[in-house]
Amino acid sequence: MTDEIETGLTLTPKFDANGLLTAVVTDAADGALLMVAHMNAEALAKSMESRTAVFYSRSRQRLWQKGESSGNVLHIVDMRIDCDQDAIWIIAEPQGPSCHTGARSCFYRRINKDGLEPV
Amino acid sequence: MTDEIETGLTLTPKFDANGLLTAVVTDAADGALLMVAHMNAEALAKSMESRTAVFYSRSRQRLWQKGESSGNVLHIVDMRIDCDQDAIWIIAEPQGPSCHTGARSCFYRRINKDGLEPV
Repeated sequence: MTDEIETGLTLTPKFDANGLLTAVVTDAADGALLMVAHMNAEALAKSMESRTAVFYSRSRQRLWQKGESSGNVLHIVDMRIDCDQDAIWIIAEPQGPSCHTGARSCFYRRINKDGLEPV
Repeated sequence: MTDEIETGLTLTPKFDANGLLTAVVTDAADGALLMVAHMNAEALAKSMESRTAVFYSRSRQRLWQKGESSGNVLHIVDMRIDCDQDAIWIIAEPQGPSCHTGARSCFYRRINKDGLEPV
């Protein structure tokens, strides 16, 4: 079973207890990590169908088309899945900033020994 | 409070119900996504201290020094945290393959409409 999940060519996502996968988004242009979010089965299906990123918002407990209010859609160039099929990598062309704060990436602070530092 | 978490320079990780953060690892050399794992507070502290990646294994329910058995340690070049402080980005110099399958990255399969395809 594990072998089939790890080496097989059938998509069999391993959703967690809440029915979610981790989704990691990088920029197709330069590989920068833009954001980390979650997908349920419907979000994954809609992302594959529309070729734009659709997530599941844990805080709002509903499907969330990235950019639905901001217009900052993520156009999907490539999608990959990891060895145990519980994480998705989306390589995207972002239409505008990916973070709701207006930053290009959600990862705008470095962790130092003494705290955080803007990058 | 949200503002302080998003814009502040104090490390205040938002652990989930299981006490975990999502950790994303990319290769410092070319930005390739290597793996996605989890960290509890102790794993985060040990990673910061040792400058090598330490995770929490959900399946084995214990701390897991990446490379402890394989020797494939991840040397940490840079660590970042996201806007809501529930995800960590580790930029690393990997000593060998990052995936337990022997692949350089855990993301060795593309998701297509018809299934998966090796990359």
